[in-house]
Amino acid sequence: MSAPVELHPTSIRRTVETLVHSFAASVVERDERGGTPKKERDALRKSGLLTLSIPTQYGGLGASWIETLDTVREFARIDSSIAHVYGFHHLLLATVRLFARPDQWEPWFTQTARHEWFWGNALNPLDTRTIVRKFDNWYDFSGKKSFCSGALDSEMLIASGFEETSGKLLIAAIPSSRTGITLHHDWNSFGQRQTDSGSALFEKVRVEESELLLDPGPLSTPFASLRPLLAQLIFAHLFQGIGEGVFAEIKHYTVHETRPWFSSPASHANKDQHVLRHYGEFWVELEGARLLLQHATRLFDEAWARGEALNAEARGHVAIAIATAKIAATRSGLDLSSQLFDVAGARATHGALRLDRFWRNLRTQTLHDPIDYKLQEIGEWALNDELPTPSFYS
Amino acid sequence: MSAPVELHPTSIRRTVETLVHSFAASVVERDERGGTPKKERDALRKSGLLTLSIPTQYGGLGASWIETLDTVREFARIDSSIAHVYGFHHLLLATVRLFARPDQWEPWFTQTARHEWFWGNALNPLDTRTIVRKFDNWYDFSGKKSFCSGALDSEMLIASGFEETSGKLLIAAIPSSRTGITLHHDWNSFGQRQTDSGSALFEKVRVEESELLLDPGPLSTPFASLRPLLAQLIFAHLFQGIGEGVFAEIKHYTVHETRPWFSSPASHANKDQHVLRHYGEFWVELEGARLLLQHATRLFDEAWARGEALNAEARGHVAIAIATAKIAATRSGLDLSSQLFDVAGARATHGALRLDRFWRNLRTQTLHDPIDYKLQEIGEWALNDELPTPSFYS
Amino acid sequence: MSAPVELHPTSIRRTVETLVHSFAASVVERDERGGTPKKERDALRKSGLLTLSIPTQYGGLGASWIETLDTVREFARIDSSIAHVYGFHHLLLATVRLFARPDQWEPWFTQTARHEWFWGNALNPLDTRTIVRKFDNWYDFSGKKSFCSGALDSEMLIASGFEETSGKLLIAAIPSSRTGITLHHDWNSFGQRQTDSGSALFEKVRVEESELLLDPGPLSTPFASLRPLLAQLIFAHLFQGIGEGVFAEIKHYTVHETRPWFSSPASHANKDQHVLRHYGEFWVELEGARLLLQHATRLFDEAWARGEALNAEARGHVAIAIATAKIAATRSGLDLSSQLFDVAGARATHGALRLDRFWRNLRTQTLHDPIDYKLQEIGEWALNDELPTPSFYS
Amino acid sequence: MSAPVELHPTSIRRTVETLVHSFAASVVERDERGGTPKKERDALRKSGLLTLSIPTQYGGLGASWIETLDTVREFARIDSSIAHVYGFHHLLLATVRLFARPDQWEPWFTQTARHEWFWGNALNPLDTRTIVRKFDNWYDFSGKKSFCSGALDSEMLIASGFEETSGKLLIAAIPSSRTGITLHHDWNSFGQRQTDSGSALFEKVRVEESELLLDPGPLSTPFASLRPLLAQLIFAHLFQGIGEGVFAEIKHYTVHETRPWFSSPASHANKDQHVLRHYGEFWVELEGARLLLQHATRLFDEAWARGEALNAEARGHVAIAIATAKIAATRSGLDLSSQLFDVAGARATHGALRLDRFWRNLRTQTLHDPIDYKLQEIGEWALNDELPTPSFYS
Repeated sequence: MSAPVELHPTSIRRTVETLVHSFAASVVERDERGGTPKKERDALRKSGLLTLSIPTQYGGLGASWIETLDTVREFARIDSSIAHVYGFHHLLLATVRLFARPDQWEPWFTQTARHEWFWGNALNPLDTRTIVRKFDNWYDFSGKKSFCSGALDSEMLIASGFEETSGKLLIAAIPSSRTGITLHHDWNSFGQRQTDSGSALFEKVRVEESELLLDPGPLSTPFASLRPLLAQLIFAHLFQGIGEGVFAEIKHYTVHETRPWFSSPASHANKDQHVLRHYGEFWVELEGARLLLQHATRLFDEAWARGEALNAEARGHVAIAIATAKIAATRSGLDLSSQLFDVAGARATHGALRLDRFWRNLRTQTLHDPIDYKLQEIGEWALNDELPTPSFYS
Repeated sequence: MSAPVELHPTSIRRTVETLVHSFAASVVERDERGGTPKKERDALRKSGLLTLSIPTQYGGLGASWIETLDTVREFARIDSSIAHVYGFHHLLLATVRLFARPDQWEPWFTQTARHEWFWGNALNPLDTRTIVRKFDNWYDFSGKKSFCSGALDSEMLIASGFEETSGKLLIAAIPSSRTGITLHHDWNSFGQRQTDSGSALFEKVRVEESELLLDPGPLSTPFASLRPLLAQLIFAHLFQGIGEGVFAEIKHYTVHETRPWFSSPASHANKDQHVLRHYGEFWVELEGARLLLQHATRLFDEAWARGEALNAEARGHVAIAIATAKIAATRSGLDLSSQLFDVAGARATHGALRLDRFWRNLRTQTLHDPIDYKLQEIGEWALNDELPTPSFYS
Repeated sequence: MSAPVELHPTSIRRTVETLVHSFAASVVERDERGGTPKKERDALRKSGLLTLSIPTQYGGLGASWIETLDTVREFARIDSSIAHVYGFHHLLLATVRLFARPDQWEPWFTQTARHEWFWGNALNPLDTRTIVRKFDNWYDFSGKKSFCSGALDSEMLIASGFEETSGKLLIAAIPSSRTGITLHHDWNSFGQRQTDSGSALFEKVRVEESELLLDPGPLSTPFASLRPLLAQLIFAHLFQGIGEGVFAEIKHYTVHETRPWFSSPASHANKDQHVLRHYGEFWVELEGARLLLQHATRLFDEAWARGEALNAEARGHVAIAIATAKIAATRSGLDLSSQLFDVAGARATHGALRLDRFWRNLRTQTLHDPIDYKLQEIGEWALNDELPTPSFYS
Repeated sequence: MSAPVELHPTSIRRTVETLVHSFAASVVERDERGGTPKKERDALRKSGLLTLSIPTQYGGLGASWIETLDTVREFARIDSSIAHVYGFHHLLLATVRLFARPDQWEPWFTQTARHEWFWGNALNPLDTRTIVRKFDNWYDFSGKKSFCSGALDSEMLIASGFEETSGKLLIAAIPSSRTGITLHHDWNSFGQRQTDSGSALFEKVRVEESELLLDPGPLSTPFASLRPLLAQLIFAHLFQGIGEGVFAEIKHYTVHETRPWFSSPASHANKDQHVLRHYGEFWVELEGARLLLQHATRLFDEAWARGEALNAEARGHVAIAIATAKIAATRSGLDLSSQLFDVAGARATHGALRLDRFWRNLRTQTLHDPIDYKLQEIGEWALNDELPTPSFYS
């Protein structure tokens, strides 16, 4: 194991570009195959980017959330499965930072940086099947869990369960290899096919008290309540990345491959009046979503910087900005990933290109939580000046 | 070979239902596999439905176009690949009926009914690579051809080429097994995966003068110009069928599988106000497209019944009605096949269901000819009272 | 007073055309003025069209609802205020037919035909301010009422109130001139400016028992429950008429007045590719709504013909068809009345043309009952196979 | 005449608020009346805001374009007619700054600040009816001109004509009172009713060479070509202001006046799930447009600051950003000004409120140049990486 490479913004950008280039070469094949992108996950480990959001004093690259999320979006343009587990890795690091004591997360950060750990998710607050029983100074986690993105091939896991008597949500950070944990290779969706978002089984998994994120605990303060906002923000970057990715792919196709319709007065498809108008529409949508996302990301970064001084109102404004950006990115991404074919023409559906993957990936990922309730939440703000109550989705 | 079964409307319906039931059982697996649905094509042959549009005096079932297209749409609800090649089979029969002399098409009709022939397509008027050289009383067809839907596993082929000197489009009906014809198993698109719409190679294929459709010839009269309208109408029935199919599938899923969002006041997802509103929207779209299609199909049937008495104006009105229906079905189908996931929820993306196939099939098929130029054509009518000039797309 | 003219379909059409021609000449000026279109209402009286839906045995023209609603839509293309009060007149005749005994409505029909009565509306089931007190064999109606379309300058009024003790809705047919009724000239909306949909005051208005519509009474049977459906259907014809009207006006303007944009390759605006595409879109929307409306009107006519034999399920299907048509007509009308300016250009906003009146009229009238709850109702059918429960809005 | 008051940001804000408050009190009545808002124009003169964009060394308030356009949008929320002529006043000052020599524009700036001049527009590059004849050292401007916003009640006029022989566009700055100029009170549109955008007649108007903007002249350099971009940017601020204005008005109405539909489970309209969802949608649209506009305005301000050092490419990026923002503001404004009624309900159409004015104003103003060609222009950038060629509309 080597020491984490010292990366500066330019070198980060170069690292990302190299990885993007490499991921792009196999993404079509891997979309077909599904399963764990082991080689790509290892490349991420080696790149040092798994330490991007870890402050330098713990051996990380010390990037801001703006910088970190830029890399998520960058990956999502090419491979939104990898972008997902990569983004969630940073989310899970943020989770221990926000929900646990420094004497807990500091060593985790340090070890993550030193050992190139990949963190995986087994926290699903809507899945109540994992029950926690308290013993003297340890806890037994037992039960099933669904949608465990990135849990396979991870070193550490954020896992949740509900306390048997109180029904309280408990969250722990534990090694993925701990006895009693079985991670199933059963993720099979038509999109986001390499996120390994399958199921897990916990059988009498022993969790020490020091592994529980109790102080300050989940959603306990406005600052701690940034956690679900970061999750939503990562989604928004994924969606926008997919939108930008499909735009770039089909722009290239339109310019180089598409022929004008036989009754078009244009000599080339890219000068056809209808084609140009469509691209104008795509641009307006994409650019609006891009600026909403940039704005939301800045607000998030500022809120993060305020730490425990962050108040509920400021946190609420971040929540609205992120929800707004997420909806715009959802809409523009779904529109583009379907409508771009209208300008590319029939041959763009060729199976070898798998250009449908953008729609499949986005359609799958955008169902995480329903857009109507997100709109309703924004409506409470827009109409009634009420900011969202923190939850794992708001 | 048995004599064609005498089918009456009720028995036709029963036959279709039996086939639909059987196709449904394997459609998910076949969508994954692609290739030729040999078993299903043979079931169609045995069912007698390949003679549906053939008048009874030639051994067919003598159905109207309304009835024939009803079966196309019925199949498309479940399997739009089969619906495509099945619809095109009837289109190709109509092609010889409209472009050739009775002493040509009557025997073809009779033999199709007697021998359970399946007709395939090798007519692509935008593909100019097949060249025709005239000899004494025969013609040499040589060159390549793309998008030959249903040509594989067919008994007869409608093939086109351009005369070497005059550049005139020539169309022939020939046995698929004729020497010099190679049909490639190279169709690979993300949708309509079992239509075998791959390429063909003609190497010095000898075509007799009596096999050419010269009298009255392609698009020669308003009646003969119904041919491209039937093609467009078949597309519209495919699109509407896909829309109705995905609606039925996801309606069932929403009622039986979807859980209400945790913040919904509804106890079941199918009583959630947002979910209900979405279904209201879907219904309005689907029902509008359905009535436009019904209207267009009636007009087409009436126009067909007029035969060579049909005038250009009446033909033009049919063209507008079909174009209108096709656009509405395109729009509503694309909307539904993507938005229905919003009401079904994340689990509906499970790979085993392959519910993305509706969007993939529709997205692929709707790129046959561009919607903008179709809209422009309707615009010429709506604004300038000018009916479309017959072409292979109008 | 002259005997009602015997009109046959052709003569009805001619009568409508003459009136339309005359209304068109003053509609711009009257839209500005507002108030009661007395001259036009009298022209309707003289035309015999107020007897259109009255069966011939009572001296009417005996038209079907298809025919009657055709005239409503025809008027709405030019003047949707007049179309509204004219349509409501027929609705109010249908109200007594559906809610009262033959010995009540037969004389009212006969007298309406003989004396050229115009019926006005004072039935608003959501306005609970009019209280009914029962005395020996008469009733006292006292209180206020809003949205009384067409009550001013009417001979007869359908008025409602809530019984003091039971809270039951009571509906009566009474002469508009009865002592105690004050109709206010206080309608002032930005659209539908000549519908006189203002307020009324009832001060100890004496209503005889024989004037109450108690047998079978409001919404008492599936047949009686056609009344709110007719109201909704009239709205749908108004909306569609407005859509068709603005389309016709701006089509004429585009062809004759609009100049192509300086960077357009087209020599005339009506050959511009974008303009043509827009007209294609308008046509698809308008035609979809037209067919939905035609379908709903046919179903309504059939349901009406079945009389008290109509069952709840058949009535429910009519309700869904009408709701669907109404939403489509609302959408297409609002789209067209705003977007048509994009193709007509800046000069089409000239004040002398008042072309904004289509949007103003439609926007006002489409707020009668909320589209979201109508969609939700359709959703209950589309998703849960539940037909609407009859109410004054369903 | 008093010296211009020294305003600082806070005092500018206070001044704007005071004016807005005063304009709001009469806007409904003035929208009905049309004509010149003389009292309001004089209040603007006295406020010092007509000097807002003039650098302090010439006696102005020295505001940036960000600050100046903020005030335009602020006015547009309440009264988009006044916002228009006020914005155009600053555009016309920028016109002399960009097209003329310092020894020309410096005195004009100084005098504008000192004498509270209001500048009006008589520059319409698509109207070729005004002909310029050159004499020794002066020019004769003769002919008609349309769409002269703010020309009435102005002290100075920017007027254009085409040179008789060369066809070259000439632009002059002249006193509005000069002999030969007749400004007609003939503006009559259904929206923007107090912009006085009527016609002008030039009869042998003598223009001195020193009044012509020849050096560097119209669109002569990238910097000079910022002029049409400022015009487009002012429009975008008008549109966004109208959208924000109607949102604020109807939000207030929904909260305080709207009653929930009788079948809504909500006790108040502002808690109805459909109403909340609509407000969520409105917010997403409005916020997207707001950020696009903010971004475009910043880019414009930066480009302005670069002066003649601005290159064509940088200018092109500003053009794209402004076009994008303008389209988004057009769309969101048109959507909101029509759809907000769906959540406010029927009573919001009351004539005394004139809430339709937002749609009428926006619909009128957004027709200045066609959105399709603006989208096509953006499409050239999005698809072909081609920046717009400067013109008076790009």
